[in-house]
Amino acid sequence: MKIVVLGAGLVGSAIVRDLAAEPDFDVTAVDIDRTLLAGLAAEIGVGTTRADLREPEAVSRVVSGADLVISAVPGCMGFATLKAIISAGKNVVDISFFAEDPFLLDDLARRKGVTAVVDCGVAPGLCNIIAGRVQAEVDQIDRYTCYVGGLPAIRRWPYEYQAGFSPSDVLEEYIRPARMVENGQEVVYPALSAVELIDFPLVGTLEAFNTDGLRTLRRTLKAANMREKTLRYPGHANLMRIFRESGFFSEEPVVVDEQPVRPIALASKLLFEQWRLGEGEHDFTVMQVLIEGWDRGHPFLRRFDLFDRYDVASHTTSMARTTGYTCAIVARQVLDGLFDEKGVCPPEYLGRTPGCYEDLLAGYARRGIHVVEQAF
Amino acid sequence: MKIVVLGAGLVGSAIVRDLAAEPDFDVTAVDIDRTLLAGLAAEIGVGTTRADLREPEAVSRVVSGADLVISAVPGCMGFATLKAIISAGKNVVDISFFAEDPFLLDDLARRKGVTAVVDCGVAPGLCNIIAGRVQAEVDQIDRYTCYVGGLPAIRRWPYEYQAGFSPSDVLEEYIRPARMVENGQEVVYPALSAVELIDFPLVGTLEAFNTDGLRTLRRTLKAANMREKTLRYPGHANLMRIFRESGFFSEEPVVVDEQPVRPIALASKLLFEQWRLGEGEHDFTVMQVLIEGWDRGHPFLRRFDLFDRYDVASHTTSMARTTGYTCAIVARQVLDGLFDEKGVCPPEYLGRTPGCYEDLLAGYARRGIHVVEQAF
Repeated sequence: MKIVVLGAGLVGSAIVRDLAAEPDFDVTAVDIDRTLLAGLAAEIGVGTTRADLREPEAVSRVVSGADLVISAVPGCMGFATLKAIISAGKNVVDISFFAEDPFLLDDLARRKGVTAVVDCGVAPGLCNIIAGRVQAEVDQIDRYTCYVGGLPAIRRWPYEYQAGFSPSDVLEEYIRPARMVENGQEVVYPALSAVELIDFPLVGTLEAFNTDGLRTLRRTLKAANMREKTLRYPGHANLMRIFRESGFFSEEPVVVDEQPVRPIALASKLLFEQWRLGEGEHDFTVMQVLIEGWDRGHPFLRRFDLFDRYDVASHTTSMARTTGYTCAIVARQVLDGLFDEKGVCPPEYLGRTPGCYEDLLAGYARRGIHVVEQAF
Repeated sequence: MKIVVLGAGLVGSAIVRDLAAEPDFDVTAVDIDRTLLAGLAAEIGVGTTRADLREPEAVSRVVSGADLVISAVPGCMGFATLKAIISAGKNVVDISFFAEDPFLLDDLARRKGVTAVVDCGVAPGLCNIIAGRVQAEVDQIDRYTCYVGGLPAIRRWPYEYQAGFSPSDVLEEYIRPARMVENGQEVVYPALSAVELIDFPLVGTLEAFNTDGLRTLRRTLKAANMREKTLRYPGHANLMRIFRESGFFSEEPVVVDEQPVRPIALASKLLFEQWRLGEGEHDFTVMQVLIEGWDRGHPFLRRFDLFDRYDVASHTTSMARTTGYTCAIVARQVLDGLFDEKGVCPPEYLGRTPGCYEDLLAGYARRGIHVVEQAF
């Protein structure tokens, strides 16, 4: 089976390593960065192709021989890349988390007879699969709540935050209004609002605040109340609000020393230095999904907890593990035909497909990732 | 008596108003800003002259007929302006708080037979006068501590700070290493360090932190321990440290959108909007000077407290009152000959001159400013 992975960054390379470990798979990594490719080729002997994936023709060319494509390009390139892959008639699992509505490509994917799984990481990703799974099992979901965050193991003043990816993507979460569902209506909150403190085992007290993370669930999940909140160490949200409300995250140019400057461009640059997860620094991922509803005349509350750490043996961040391995496991499900729905498929579609959730949990378990479900 | 006031900004205009109220004084306000001058002329009928005081020849020209000059220009222009005034042979009281060492002009002032009082506000200013006064009265000072701050009456999230002057001057206080004296040695602390909480009557709990405010006292006061700390509402120092340590107060250009940007230039611009003391918004000034030592075989601790509010009747900020009125009262002392020392004179020289401190307190009292001294 020939698999082409577009994007060999932190998450893409974790996917490449995971898939390349299977003898049946012939994996090719594609990126514009020769150094990344040379590193992967030397380390695990996969095939590599250098290409500028911003050009749709380059995407068509590199995916032409593939049985399955994985798109792990930066979010800003994600939609156009996915469109080119679908146009080429290739099944694809996408983890680029682009901002555009993926359903705009649904007709195209159906016409091409293509399975295009989007948002296939941990959140979005796993939490959608859980929501789809529960929806398929019960009579009615009243409330869906997801708390999720990736955090550094060591807390450093003042942000107590480090990211394996660009701060501009993180800052976007702190700016974009958070669309929630309350009593069946869309309600829009400012990002970083409604800060609450929650204790997590092995972690301690974290704060949770509104971010715009429901994505496709706002459309696909039938629940009167839906909310996604991001987790950070306490104090982070207030600090980010201060920066935002003072104008440091504004896109609007400000004239400084007689030239226009976008404040967010400077803030991204300076905060990148502060937030970089350095070589050998450890992160962890914590996620809790709470689903309430009614089934066969009885109310239920089901809680799903994920806690995952940096893997010291393989030097893989938890962020790359939880997002990349979800993508890699789902890729196998598509290749095996366990999931074969056509069109644009958010992960909740996998959740409602018999066998997919159990296979995902088994795949997670082999990689040391555990999802614990409790019913109340 | 002809008095020329250079600079008709917030403090300069308060000085002009104060001096113009005396029938004996013929006051002329000088500024580059026609609107400021027109406002003063219409309000109190003083003479005005428009001039660009960045040119030393312009300074010489406008001070030529003066019996006394007051310099209330921005700090960055202060040293050059003072030099031009002294060169013109005019007595001067300076409140520009320039960064340069004023004693560099001492020889020139002595040669010209000029009295040049510098740093003549509240801090520096009043606190120096108090130090000079106590030093003249006692055998030995062991410890001098000054806590001082100008704050808004209404606390607004997140900075709880507003200033009547440019944030770049405030940011300078948060950046420049703070030179203190401990056991007779100069010790340099980072600005914003050593945060402590102190309760003040009528105000509540404030935080005090190290800033570089001792200025001439480091040279002139004979005390083994000297410290100046700035007062803000609690939390401000930590926030400012976060900005500073993240690089937002750096002068070093950062390349953003392919052009170099000085982060502090952007921060000054954005924080100016946040920190502006708006029309009708009230401020207050709080200062506490603690002096410990030995006199005639006994230890003493003397505490001097100042608390002053915005004046609603005259719409004058407390910052303008406490700094401007100190300058205006000292100007009278120089004109009257109560203080006639030649050369560059920091305010501690007035403190040690018989009668000056009592006259200052009396002048303050007439303007509703009260300094309370307690001995322990």
